[in-house]
Amino acid sequence: MPEEKKAADKFTTIDELARRRGFFWQSNEIYGGVAGFATYGSLGAKLKQNIERKLRELFVNKLGILEIESPVITPSKVFEASGHIDHFKEPMVECLNCKKRFRADHLLQEHAKIGESESERMNLKELNEAIERHIIKCPECGGTLGKPKLFSTMFKTTIGPYAGAVGYGRPEAAQGIFVEFRRLYEMTREKLPFGVLQVGHALRNEISPRQGLIRLREFTIIDLEFFFDPEEPNCFLLKDVEKEKLRLFLAESKLRGSEEITEVTIKKALKKGYIKAEWQAFFMACFQKVLADLGVPAEKQRFIEKLPWERAHYSLQSFDQQFYDERWGWTEVSGHAYRTDYDLKRHMEFSGQDMRVYKECEEPVEKEQLIIKPIMAKLGPIFKRDAAAVAEMLSKTDPKEIETSLKKKGHHMLGKFKILPEHVEIERQKVVERGSRFIPHVVEPSVGSDRLVYVALEYAYHVKEGRVLLSFPRDIAPVQIGVYPLVSKDGLPEKALKLHKRLLDEGFMVDYDEAGSIGRRYARADEIGIPLGITVDYDTLKDDTVTIRDRDTWEQVRSPIAALPELLRRYFRWKINFKDLGKPFKG
Amino acid sequence: MPEEKKAADKFTTIDELARRRGFFWQSNEIYGGVAGFATYGSLGAKLKQNIERKLRELFVNKLGILEIESPVITPSKVFEASGHIDHFKEPMVECLNCKKRFRADHLLQEHAKIGESESERMNLKELNEAIERHIIKCPECGGTLGKPKLFSTMFKTTIGPYAGAVGYGRPEAAQGIFVEFRRLYEMTREKLPFGVLQVGHALRNEISPRQGLIRLREFTIIDLEFFFDPEEPNCFLLKDVEKEKLRLFLAESKLRGSEEITEVTIKKALKKGYIKAEWQAFFMACFQKVLADLGVPAEKQRFIEKLPWERAHYSLQSFDQQFYDERWGWTEVSGHAYRTDYDLKRHMEFSGQDMRVYKECEEPVEKEQLIIKPIMAKLGPIFKRDAAAVAEMLSKTDPKEIETSLKKKGHHMLGKFKILPEHVEIERQKVVERGSRFIPHVVEPSVGSDRLVYVALEYAYHVKEGRVLLSFPRDIAPVQIGVYPLVSKDGLPEKALKLHKRLLDEGFMVDYDEAGSIGRRYARADEIGIPLGITVDYDTLKDDTVTIRDRDTWEQVRSPIAALPELLRRYFRWKINFKDLGKPFKG
Repeated sequence: MPEEKKAADKFTTIDELARRRGFFWQSNEIYGGVAGFATYGSLGAKLKQNIERKLRELFVNKLGILEIESPVITPSKVFEASGHIDHFKEPMVECLNCKKRFRADHLLQEHAKIGESESERMNLKELNEAIERHIIKCPECGGTLGKPKLFSTMFKTTIGPYAGAVGYGRPEAAQGIFVEFRRLYEMTREKLPFGVLQVGHALRNEISPRQGLIRLREFTIIDLEFFFDPEEPNCFLLKDVEKEKLRLFLAESKLRGSEEITEVTIKKALKKGYIKAEWQAFFMACFQKVLADLGVPAEKQRFIEKLPWERAHYSLQSFDQQFYDERWGWTEVSGHAYRTDYDLKRHMEFSGQDMRVYKECEEPVEKEQLIIKPIMAKLGPIFKRDAAAVAEMLSKTDPKEIETSLKKKGHHMLGKFKILPEHVEIERQKVVERGSRFIPHVVEPSVGSDRLVYVALEYAYHVKEGRVLLSFPRDIAPVQIGVYPLVSKDGLPEKALKLHKRLLDEGFMVDYDEAGSIGRRYARADEIGIPLGITVDYDTLKDDTVTIRDRDTWEQVRSPIAALPELLRRYFRWKINFKDLGKPFKG
Repeated sequence: MPEEKKAADKFTTIDELARRRGFFWQSNEIYGGVAGFATYGSLGAKLKQNIERKLRELFVNKLGILEIESPVITPSKVFEASGHIDHFKEPMVECLNCKKRFRADHLLQEHAKIGESESERMNLKELNEAIERHIIKCPECGGTLGKPKLFSTMFKTTIGPYAGAVGYGRPEAAQGIFVEFRRLYEMTREKLPFGVLQVGHALRNEISPRQGLIRLREFTIIDLEFFFDPEEPNCFLLKDVEKEKLRLFLAESKLRGSEEITEVTIKKALKKGYIKAEWQAFFMACFQKVLADLGVPAEKQRFIEKLPWERAHYSLQSFDQQFYDERWGWTEVSGHAYRTDYDLKRHMEFSGQDMRVYKECEEPVEKEQLIIKPIMAKLGPIFKRDAAAVAEMLSKTDPKEIETSLKKKGHHMLGKFKILPEHVEIERQKVVERGSRFIPHVVEPSVGSDRLVYVALEYAYHVKEGRVLLSFPRDIAPVQIGVYPLVSKDGLPEKALKLHKRLLDEGFMVDYDEAGSIGRRYARADEIGIPLGITVDYDTLKDDTVTIRDRDTWEQVRSPIAALPELLRRYFRWKINFKDLGKPFKG
C-alpha cells in the first residue's frame, strides 16, 4: 500500500524536523525519556501560544466568553462528585512472564482486528474471553497475559502533610469551572447564557502512550463550558453559521457498519435532530473554522458521533471532531459533549451548595407544592454528626425526585447517604409561584492544544523544488519576519540590525540572520515557516527601500522602510495580501 | 501601631475586591477550599497573562531569550540529580494531642521571636531544643509538640502503570531547561551566552500555606536560566544599565544585625564585589524595572543577599528581590541565584551525557594531559552491571578533579559510585591542545507570576474621593477600554455596540456596559482598572466624535471615531499620553 508508506514517512519527517529545529521532542531524553511527555522548544512554544491566542481571540475577545485559570492539583472530593473516580479507568492486562502492562482493548484492536467501538464496549469478562479466544500473547515477550483489570488513569498524590488528604492531577480543566459556577454566574451579573473557558495543563496517566503529540500523559487542554437555560435553548448566534455545512459521521451509520458521511447544513442537522443542542451545533461550526484556519481543508475534517457506550459518563450526545492524519488515519482533535446538568447537579449533591439559578415566571401561577420535611428524631440517631448536613441536602434536592425515588426504589441516595421513607414527612401545599430555580445545562467543546500544534505542522508541511516549507497560516507562524543583510559587510548588517530592532519595538516577532548565503538563509527560514523575509541591500543604503519575500511563492516586492510597520500590521491581521506590500520586484 | 492596622485593612480590602469582581479567590470553596490553591477569574486571568506577556516582550522578543515549555510531572531521576530529593525539605512538627502539623521554624519565628535567618539555620536537633527551651505548644490546641522531622515538599506520584516509576510535580521550571541543555545549545547554533525562559505551573507542597497569592502550593513560576562561559563572564548589555542604582541589603549588614541599605550603581556594586556575576547584576536591573513598571516605586523595593545557610543548595550567591507589602512587610518577589555549573554538572554525572561545550583556543598550546584509565578487571567485580557506565562516567569527568579527590580523600564519588585509587591508572601525556571543553555557568532570575499579580493589585489600589480605583499601568490592565452609550435609548446603544465591535476587531480588550447611570458605570470601570472609557452621546450621532475619559484623573477629551484605532494603539504602546488622544472636553 504505497499511500500508507508515504504517510509513515511524513510523520517521521515532521518528527525529525521538529527535533532538529526545536519545535518539540520527548522530554528528559538524557535520562532515556518517559513516554507521553513532550518539551516544546522555542519555535514550538511560540506556535502553541499563537494557536491558543487565536482561540482566545475568537472565544474570549469576540464572543465575550470568560476565561479562568484554576489549579491542576485538585482535592479528591471534586472527582468523587464528577464521577471521575468511578469512571476514569482503562482495562489493563499484565504479562505473567515479563510483567509488562498493556491496554487490553488496544491489544484486541491491534492483534485481533476488533474495532474501537466494539472493544470499548466490552467489560472485563468479555475482554478476557476475547483475549483467550484470539490467543493473544504479550507483544513484548510472547508470554501469557493475565486477567484484565481496571486501572485509574488519574495521577494521584497527597496534598499537604497529611496522608489522608488525597488529591489528583486533573484529567480535564472542566471541573475547575463547574465547582466555581456560583462565582462565575455572579460575574456575569446573573445572566444566562454564558460561557467559561480554561486553557491549562491536564494529566492522564495513560497505560502505554504512543503517537507523539497526539496522545500525551501531560498536555494542554482547552475546555469551554457553555451554560444555558434548557427551557430557552436557542442559540442567538446561530444565524451566523446555519448555512455552513458539516460532514457528520452519524451513530446510525456506524451501527450499520457504514462509513457514510452525512454532509448537511447546521440548520438541517438541527432540524433532522442529528445534533440535539443548538449551542453544540454552533460550537461545532466554530471548531470547523478553527481547523480550517490552521490549514485543514473541509474534506480532511469530519464529526463522528459517539455511540452510547463510547460516550463519557456525563454526556447525552457527543461528537468527536476528527482530522485526517496521513499516518494515523481519522484522529480526534476536539470533543463536543452535551453534558446537560450532570456536573452541576452532582456538585450540588456532593457539596450541599445550591447550584440552581432563579428565573421569574412571565406571570405568577398557583401550584401545588411538594414539601419534604426531614424528621430529625429519625435522622439524628442514624446519621449522627452528619444529620444536619443531610437535612440541608434534603432541602436543596428536587422534592419530586425524592418522592419518586422513595416510591420506586424504597430509598433515595443523597451522595453517600441513604434516605428511607420513614426519615421524612411528605406534604403538599398550595403556593403562588413567581419564579423557579433550575440547574443550567452545559454544552462543552474541548480541544487539546498539542494536537492542534501537530495538525498545524502536518498541514503546513510542503516540499517545493526539493526544499521543505512550513506554510503556516501567517497569523500562527512562530516567527513573523526574517531580516537579512544581503551580504555581511559594507554597513548592510548595521542597517539591517536597526530595522530588526525597529520591528521588534513595533511588537513583531522578528529573527535576524546574517550567516551564510542569502539563498541558504531563505531556505532555513522557509523550513521553520517564516512568512516574510526582508532583505537589506545596497539600494537600501541609497533610498531606504527593502525587498520583501513571500515564503510560499518566493515572489518579491519592494517597499520603503517607513511604510513597513503599518503595512506589516495589516498583512498579519489579514487586511491585505502579499502583493499589497509593495511594488513587484525581480531580485 | 497605626500603620500596621491600616496595612491589614488594605490586604483584606484587596482580597474582598478580588473575590467580588472576580480577580481571584480560593479554589474549590464549595468543598471548604484547600489552603494554597487559587483560581483566577476573568479579570485576574487576563491581568496575569498581561504581566507574563510583558516579561516575554522584554526577555523573549527584545533580548532574544529562548522560551520552552516542559511538563510539570518529572521522573524522579531528574530531581535525584538536581539535589531536590535530598534538599527540598522543611522541618515539621506534629502536635502529639490533635495531630496537627506545623513548620517548626515558622513556630519559632512567630512564638519565640527568633529571626528567619537564625531559624532557617537550625538543624532538627537545634529546632527541637529551641521548641523545648521556649516551651512552644501547639497553636491550635495547646498540646505538646513532637520532635521535628524533615518533610519533603514535593508532590509525589507514579508515572504509568508501574508502582516503581516515581515522579514528582516540579517545584521549579529550571530543571526542565537544564536537562534539555544540549538541544537548546544546538538551537542557538552552539553560541554562548544564551538564555532560556520557561513560564509554567510549579508545585510546592507547603506544610501550612497562608498569605493568599504570596504563598501557593500550585503557582506559576517564570524561570530564566542564562548560560555563559565562566572565562568570559562579561555582560555585553551592561552599559545599558550600569548607571542604574540598586538598593542592596547585603549579607554583611545582616550579619551585623543592621538593616542598612547600600544604594549603589550596578557598576559600583560589581566593582566592590557586592554582586559576583555581571549577568546577575544585569538581570537584577531588569527586574527592578519590571517591578517599577508594575507600579512599585524604587523606595519600596530592595535586594536582600542571602546568607550562606539561607541559599539554595546550588547557589554561590543569591539575592531576593523584595517589595514592601503593607501587611507582610518586606516580601520576596523574585530570586536571583548564581547557580554556577552545579546543575549541568550534576546532570552530566547522573545521566552520563556530556554537558560540556567546546571552545577553540586562540592558539594551540602544548600541555601535559592527565589521563585516568579505568582498570576494568577491578571495576567489573565491584560494579558488576554498572561497570561500563562507571567507566563511561570516568571518561567524562575532569581527570584533575578525580586525581585531587583520590589524593585528598582516598576516594572519588561518581554519583553513587565510589572510586578508589586501585580502580584506575593515572597517566600523564604531552598533547597539543587546540581547544577545551567546559560546563557553562548559569545565573538565574526566577519570579512567581502570582506574586506579581498581587504586587500589581496592591500598588494599583487607590481611593479617590471615597471611590476605589485600580490604577494599573495601562499595558497590564485586564480590560483596556470601556464603551458606553450615554443613555440606553435613541439609537445610542446601537452606535456604541458598533464601536465596541470595531475596537474588538482591531484587537483591543473592550467591555460594553449600558446598565445604570453613566456615573455608576464609570465607577464600576474604575474599580476594575479600565484605563479609558469611551462614551457615545447625542453629538456622536451628528458628528461621529466620542468622549474619552481617563480613569485616574477623570479628565475627558473628544475625538473622531475614525482616528481611534491608531490613537489607541499608540496610547497603549506608551507612544502618546492621554492628552494626545483628543481635544479637552468638559462633560
